[in-house]
Amino acid sequence: MGNNLIIAQSGGPTSVINASLAGAVRKAMESEKIGKVYGALYGIEGIIKEHIVDFSDLITSDDDIEKLKRTPAMALGSCRFKLGSDPDALEKILEVFRKKDIGYFLYAGGNDSMDTVDKLGKLMEERGLDIRCIGIPKTIDNDLVITDHAPGFPSAARYIATTFAELYADTDVYDKTTVTVVEVMGRNAGWLTGASALARRGSCPAPQLIYLPEIPFSYEKFEEDIRECAKTDKNIIVAVSEGIRSRDGEYISASKVAAHDTFGHASLSGTGKRLSEFVREKFGYKTRGIELSLLQRCASHLVSEKDVEEAYLCGEKAVEFAISGMNRVMATIVRVSSEPYMSEIKASDVSKIANHEKKVHRDWINEAGNDVLEEFIDYVRPLVAEEGKEAVTEFFVIDKKYNNK
Amino acid sequence: MGNNLIIAQSGGPTSVINASLAGAVRKAMESEKIGKVYGALYGIEGIIKEHIVDFSDLITSDDDIEKLKRTPAMALGSCRFKLGSDPDALEKILEVFRKKDIGYFLYAGGNDSMDTVDKLGKLMEERGLDIRCIGIPKTIDNDLVITDHAPGFPSAARYIATTFAELYADTDVYDKTTVTVVEVMGRNAGWLTGASALARRGSCPAPQLIYLPEIPFSYEKFEEDIRECAKTDKNIIVAVSEGIRSRDGEYISASKVAAHDTFGHASLSGTGKRLSEFVREKFGYKTRGIELSLLQRCASHLVSEKDVEEAYLCGEKAVEFAISGMNRVMATIVRVSSEPYMSEIKASDVSKIANHEKKVHRDWINEAGNDVLEEFIDYVRPLVAEEGKEAVTEFFVIDKKYNNK
Repeated sequence: MGNNLIIAQSGGPTSVINASLAGAVRKAMESEKIGKVYGALYGIEGIIKEHIVDFSDLITSDDDIEKLKRTPAMALGSCRFKLGSDPDALEKILEVFRKKDIGYFLYAGGNDSMDTVDKLGKLMEERGLDIRCIGIPKTIDNDLVITDHAPGFPSAARYIATTFAELYADTDVYDKTTVTVVEVMGRNAGWLTGASALARRGSCPAPQLIYLPEIPFSYEKFEEDIRECAKTDKNIIVAVSEGIRSRDGEYISASKVAAHDTFGHASLSGTGKRLSEFVREKFGYKTRGIELSLLQRCASHLVSEKDVEEAYLCGEKAVEFAISGMNRVMATIVRVSSEPYMSEIKASDVSKIANHEKKVHRDWINEAGNDVLEEFIDYVRPLVAEEGKEAVTEFFVIDKKYNNK
Repeated sequence: MGNNLIIAQSGGPTSVINASLAGAVRKAMESEKIGKVYGALYGIEGIIKEHIVDFSDLITSDDDIEKLKRTPAMALGSCRFKLGSDPDALEKILEVFRKKDIGYFLYAGGNDSMDTVDKLGKLMEERGLDIRCIGIPKTIDNDLVITDHAPGFPSAARYIATTFAELYADTDVYDKTTVTVVEVMGRNAGWLTGASALARRGSCPAPQLIYLPEIPFSYEKFEEDIRECAKTDKNIIVAVSEGIRSRDGEYISASKVAAHDTFGHASLSGTGKRLSEFVREKFGYKTRGIELSLLQRCASHLVSEKDVEEAYLCGEKAVEFAISGMNRVMATIVRVSSEPYMSEIKASDVSKIANHEKKVHRDWINEAGNDVLEEFIDYVRPLVAEEGKEAVTEFFVIDKKYNNK
């Protein structure tokens, strides 16, 4: 077939998915083996609908590449389209590939997107078509298997750790017991919620409690944890995944806790607000629920530089893999060492990644199920910290436990 | 009386109130006219309860000052104590001042704290006591009169502008109309909500609608604004103050007037979520309500450097004013020029500041009451932008309005 390349982005935004796009586009534009470099708008749907842009119209300088690399979310747009349910879609994609002389298809995304890469790559092999389908990893949730971590996760982790440390300082100002419940993304995997533990610098003990979706959540246990924690700490920060569920599998965000404020208004809220209301009702403490919401995945002002570089490299490498004749592989980060942190990008069989989910190992979570262990922190820290620096700034703390003399 | 100095912090946290503390403490420790430098824990209550620390135990190096300067919120703790309601409190304060040989009292805070400075300063004059009471301005809300702006506001404004620009990129990824309502702090004054307009860089039009508490809010008008906006924009970001009220003065927030703090202020939250639900019900668009919550006031990783420097200077100057014999004044920022930005710190009569509230001038808001005008932006921009730079990073944008050819 042709020697043109088409790239698309899929799934939820991250701060660095455009760094992968920048790396791939630059590499492809420089390569003599590649003709035109196309982008599909709004993921795979952009191919089906023939909504395609030509990067030679868009990228005209190194500055453009640099700007794209630093732009959060998907410059090409995204979709949540699941391929495979529709045979017409596959035929339509093939038709557009033929029409546009495509020889290389690159898709950046998470589990579902890798399923698309796998399905399309298989189809090419079945039809004997010389079109290479390559995956580029992307997800703040960090739930992709085989790769050491997914680009996007380190930057989101840095935002979360920094924010927790700052929140602890903020909630520490009044002379009363305060419980702040912060809701973090990650529906099935607790990587991001656990990354909040990096906020523990100097005398900052926050978050004192961490609840991951890997462990069934119990209100009774939570009440006990808060009671225990309040014996020693006046300023309690709780990190909680949006996806925590009861033992029956019911999302806590959907549960009925009879959470009404003093005037009887029903509460319109998620997991964090719900748990904070629970604590207020049970203990009468000053409480607050905070949802980090979209901020945690698009905070490009607080990226991890390693993350930007790895994301960029994954884009470059995906092009190299395609040119070298590989098919149905995903660019994969292999950790070479943690101190100092070093990594390489290799190719891995995408069929072993598609539709799998990497959760936090049980032995990286404490027995009580309310914290992560040192192994977890040792894994995340090097991804977030800049060279020779800690992940989070240490603040000046005045001990305010004053004993009248 | 004595020549010792005592300083306390009050009201809600900002990213730079400790910079003022650092400036004051350093200046006071260096001054030959000042003996001991004390800090009261948890605001004025720390004096009443004699919860007092000696800074010579806490600050032992330049590094400590630098670290304190970069620590968000109040290192000494804060309170919401309203002086004047309790004559015993005044007598108790005088007693502690005598006991500790205090000659200088510095109080950093907002309107309410300036009332405390004014009341105490008057009392000293009435009793013929040579104790100087000086105010240091602090509030992200920027509602202090006379001073050009309040330390804390520029940093919060920078966080807000940056976050809106990043959110616009994030919400721009799907091929459908999306309305995101972002709730910003500022109970009665819309300075912070209006600062979101700095996000408008390059092709970013967000926020397209801005609702300040200065203008009565109407659901009918809001519905009309969204309808109009959706004709041209698919990705709509709305900035809304937590304190918007109907024409009858009723808060729009879901929690209404559930909780009141000691000053009788309603505790507000849920405005953003409430409006986003309104849009979903009326139009069926994909909507989301985001509350910036505490993050906007404690994000020390994204301070405005000018703000840090001015806050530090306000602390230094407050000590100078005290030594020079002034009483009942507040350190005040005078803008000398906007381009390039230059300011001076002067002393202003605190009685003219206490209990007053600076709102956004009506002629800095557009006639429709759903945006700020260029005058507003010209006022805020120099406070947020670093020298020679724009306030917010411009992102790489691919036009995704694809016309099939």
